[in-house]
Amino acid sequence: MTIPTPLTGVVPPVCTPLTPDHEVDTASLVRLVDHLLTAGVHGLFVLGSSSEAAFLPDGHRKAVLDTVVGHVAGQVPVLAGAIDMATLRVLEHAKAAVAAGADAIVATAPFYTRTHPAEISRHFRLIAEATPLPLFAYDLPGSVHSKLGTDLVLELAADNVLVGLKDSSGDEGGLRSVILGARARDDISGFTVLTGGELTVDSALAMGADGVVPGLGNVDPEGYVRLYRLCAAGDRERARAEQERLCGLFGMVDVGDPARMGRGSSALGAFKTALHLRGVIDCPATAAPQIPLSPDEVELVGKYLAGAGLL
Amino acid sequence: MTIPTPLTGVVPPVCTPLTPDHEVDTASLVRLVDHLLTAGVHGLFVLGSSSEAAFLPDGHRKAVLDTVVGHVAGQVPVLAGAIDMATLRVLEHAKAAVAAGADAIVATAPFYTRTHPAEISRHFRLIAEATPLPLFAYDLPGSVHSKLGTDLVLELAADNVLVGLKDSSGDEGGLRSVILGARARDDISGFTVLTGGELTVDSALAMGADGVVPGLGNVDPEGYVRLYRLCAAGDRERARAEQERLCGLFGMVDVGDPARMGRGSSALGAFKTALHLRGVIDCPATAAPQIPLSPDEVELVGKYLAGAGLL
Amino acid sequence: MTIPTPLTGVVPPVCTPLTPDHEVDTASLVRLVDHLLTAGVHGLFVLGSSSEAAFLPDGHRKAVLDTVVGHVAGQVPVLAGAIDMATLRVLEHAKAAVAAGADAIVATAPFYTRTHPAEISRHFRLIAEATPLPLFAYDLPGSVHSKLGTDLVLELAADNVLVGLKDSSGDEGGLRSVILGARARDDISGFTVLTGGELTVDSALAMGADGVVPGLGNVDPEGYVRLYRLCAAGDRERARAEQERLCGLFGMVDVGDPARMGRGSSALGAFKTALHLRGVIDCPATAAPQIPLSPDEVELVGKYLAGAGLL
Amino acid sequence: MTIPTPLTGVVPPVCTPLTPDHEVDTASLVRLVDHLLTAGVHGLFVLGSSSEAAFLPDGHRKAVLDTVVGHVAGQVPVLAGAIDMATLRVLEHAKAAVAAGADAIVATAPFYTRTHPAEISRHFRLIAEATPLPLFAYDLPGSVHSKLGTDLVLELAADNVLVGLKDSSGDEGGLRSVILGARARDDISGFTVLTGGELTVDSALAMGADGVVPGLGNVDPEGYVRLYRLCAAGDRERARAEQERLCGLFGMVDVGDPARMGRGSSALGAFKTALHLRGVIDCPATAAPQIPLSPDEVELVGKYLAGAGLL
Repeated sequence: MTIPTPLTGVVPPVCTPLTPDHEVDTASLVRLVDHLLTAGVHGLFVLGSSSEAAFLPDGHRKAVLDTVVGHVAGQVPVLAGAIDMATLRVLEHAKAAVAAGADAIVATAPFYTRTHPAEISRHFRLIAEATPLPLFAYDLPGSVHSKLGTDLVLELAADNVLVGLKDSSGDEGGLRSVILGARARDDISGFTVLTGGELTVDSALAMGADGVVPGLGNVDPEGYVRLYRLCAAGDRERARAEQERLCGLFGMVDVGDPARMGRGSSALGAFKTALHLRGVIDCPATAAPQIPLSPDEVELVGKYLAGAGLL
Repeated sequence: MTIPTPLTGVVPPVCTPLTPDHEVDTASLVRLVDHLLTAGVHGLFVLGSSSEAAFLPDGHRKAVLDTVVGHVAGQVPVLAGAIDMATLRVLEHAKAAVAAGADAIVATAPFYTRTHPAEISRHFRLIAEATPLPLFAYDLPGSVHSKLGTDLVLELAADNVLVGLKDSSGDEGGLRSVILGARARDDISGFTVLTGGELTVDSALAMGADGVVPGLGNVDPEGYVRLYRLCAAGDRERARAEQERLCGLFGMVDVGDPARMGRGSSALGAFKTALHLRGVIDCPATAAPQIPLSPDEVELVGKYLAGAGLL
Repeated sequence: MTIPTPLTGVVPPVCTPLTPDHEVDTASLVRLVDHLLTAGVHGLFVLGSSSEAAFLPDGHRKAVLDTVVGHVAGQVPVLAGAIDMATLRVLEHAKAAVAAGADAIVATAPFYTRTHPAEISRHFRLIAEATPLPLFAYDLPGSVHSKLGTDLVLELAADNVLVGLKDSSGDEGGLRSVILGARARDDISGFTVLTGGELTVDSALAMGADGVVPGLGNVDPEGYVRLYRLCAAGDRERARAEQERLCGLFGMVDVGDPARMGRGSSALGAFKTALHLRGVIDCPATAAPQIPLSPDEVELVGKYLAGAGLL
Repeated sequence: MTIPTPLTGVVPPVCTPLTPDHEVDTASLVRLVDHLLTAGVHGLFVLGSSSEAAFLPDGHRKAVLDTVVGHVAGQVPVLAGAIDMATLRVLEHAKAAVAAGADAIVATAPFYTRTHPAEISRHFRLIAEATPLPLFAYDLPGSVHSKLGTDLVLELAADNVLVGLKDSSGDEGGLRSVILGARARDDISGFTVLTGGELTVDSALAMGADGVVPGLGNVDPEGYVRLYRLCAAGDRERARAEQERLCGLFGMVDVGDPARMGRGSSALGAFKTALHLRGVIDCPATAAPQIPLSPDEVELVGKYLAGAGLL
């Protein structure tokens, strides 16, 4: 399908359910996709950070793409992460996404290698040239250790290299600069700005962001869809109340003991545990080397769900 | 072949020559391997950072492994980098290295994902369990954004998870702590410590490091072999003079204009340009999105070579 | 005066005008204070980052405190930064602020020295114990290289160590967590949350922040007061338009050539140049070792002002 | 006294003994100075990081300067740290050092404020212009968050802005580049390079460093003097053995529980506890907000001392 310009709404980064022996659990994945579509989400982002793309071998990635694209069957656009260290490796993932029938590619700046704005620009230009799919830039300095500058994003938008930005930098001032910069320029139109922040959806939409890619949207997609609709309808007070409810639920990302695991293990473990407790996926396992939640931590996730009326 | 315990000597991280259209130039790679073996190096490290592993798709990586392992044919050990973001992806590269006949695996801590010492430990343990080849840890905080702690390295050495460390952290105090810690413990023996630093080989060997993995060793392998032998023979003054000559030659890594490219583009571009000017490889191209050296910068590399009597 | 709990409104971080020979220009400082008070600001923050506190010797700091506190004479609260590396040094500045008659102290976590959450907590507790003035925490990870955690801030608020937070971290999700956390806890009341972000005032206020500390508020205090009032009145659309106008004006912070100066030189140089061009201060000099704007860059600041109708 | 060019030997960064109520314990400080002079050190560095300069108010700093300069009375050169955020504040400390009769000033790049190479250069130039004392640059990226580039250091050396470098960056490759660069240039002579690394003194001296500024030298000055003399005499094997013994003793810096305190609290607490246990100073207190060692941790320091024959 042709992706809308701009793409608007709730586009959850789809978790990747795994079997106990760490294969992709495609049956659970299909149920998760249905769980999201039923809630009314406007698109799906597979193979991003919340999908554990960094942990998944290419075979797993292909299974995810084939399963999701096949099951969605054009009901909503499917954006595919092409997460890898540099251009040629990203292009292989982009090819796989094209082959699977995804609707757009999402790529970060190069990482592992030390990089430079000129190299980041060249990277996106080469990807856009080589793939027939529209390209989103994924700004994620916590993982990639470089920040996409506003001027660079706007230049690449004006040159039709990028159709959009997925901003998970947490820098709302920078997000707004891109939104206003794109609006101010005659040579940019239909550029999509999505925020990755779970806690600031109402304000990002009020600033003019087109949509949101919330990891917590796996757990409570109805909540984010409701929030989006309230914002779209201009009902700010009820939007704020819904957002604040979701902020409370988001507390689950910190259930994991920081002496025992990293914050990623805790957050992804909490999302998958919540999906397991809600009956959407069969097994809450996260990919190695992440540390599993303890029984006490699982119980705490349950309390967050119960508190939000989701159990 | 069985890798020596410890592995000693000069183990250059082999550059990956590319054709102008960015395929692996296997003929040039064979010439480069011969250039290194003729100089008397004691092992080869393929698919590390100086090999542009971060930039190379799996097919390129396989071509490198097959070409080098096949051509070396057991003359010296071949260590294979298995550079990827997390455990399952690293294991795929490890399998490919086993299939190609490499003699050891070299892996970093997880990256892109935020990590934790417990996760780093689990990562190396899972890799070691799953692969029949000996495992080296690659400490490269500039790329990986976490530093391997001395205690963690020693614990993994004592548990036979790691057979060695390739330390490219630039932290010589930490390097020495590992060397002295391994020596002091009864439950560690034959553990290999290699330094990745081009500028401190004489001092690292004097501290007790077993060998060196110098990117500049592609350009002047005779120099590093001579330096290693002088150190082994205890001829400190001539060792220092040779090291200082190599420090001068190393200046080539900064030929690239920092306004136009990152330091990686400059350093790898300089090494490959030097190999091209010396007639070892056919084409100095570096992988996208790296920025090529300008003609003036190429000329400057030539001056470094001429100054060192290498042209 | 007793500081309101919470403190609400626009509290500009007052620039410190300097003479050409780098003394405090108290006459210009008085004019700047009048310029701000006339615009209707609700408080003043002296000796923060925008005041160049890091650059000013103690004698300069005292001159600023005496001048501003004396001239304001209780019309609005004056918050005084006590910016220094660790507890005892901060306490000296706090004493000076008490002596000058300031209404509150603003302090960061320790910096230069590597720190730890337990040390940060102890730092704020010792400052609060030793000073009779209310204490605000200043979260500024770009300068201080540690981030104040939500839990730490709330614990210090509940223990009456902190009366408020000035959040210049740029992390709006974290800001919201503090706001909601403070609201949710019975043991916290009257806690003030101020944002340092110029570009997200409307959204921060919509989230429940009490006020704003905008560096750009030196240049256009009427704009920020208008924005605050529109937000307070619930007129979201006009608030957004005013905020977007101010976002455009904020572009002046990037007039300085990044090849020639750091971003601080550029931003503070632009603010002071704008104040000079608007006739508020006599000399746009910034403190050493900052690099002055070039004539072309000054002209560009003038264009921003003209575009905003401020010339 | 006129400082030698270059300054060579062991120049310990003198700890600052405190009374239980956190005043400078000048009697203990005098004993510590005697402890160091008796051991044969070649100079003293006061008000550096190991002196807790970041924690000490100006009055404390003055007490340290007056006490040490007065007691040393020209027997060895006294270098005085002028540690502060930016130029004008550093100049105040430089003036105090001149007034107290110190022999040289040691200053870092600006910190807290974001900086730029042009601003760092200007900073050192302005300090050198304004003070009659010779100026050393202090490279300490762990505290200052910028690294002094080799080219910048050499340019400032050639322009007679800097007489030396105290390198606590831990980057031995960079240290060597400065040493070789200074030696290679005709426009630089007598430039002093001191390393701050406790663990790599033998190798730094072998590279051509002029001296060493070891925090651990407070605890075991005889050891470092012996090490220096062995290196100077070219007795590499005994130098290495002495260095390795000191590496073992250095393990005391990690006695503090990282769950309870930062690494600075642990290291400075260990040094002061060791001085207390050895009877040199009256009280092991470190300045707020550092966390004191527990009785168990104190006992562990004692074991390190006993193991080294220092109790």
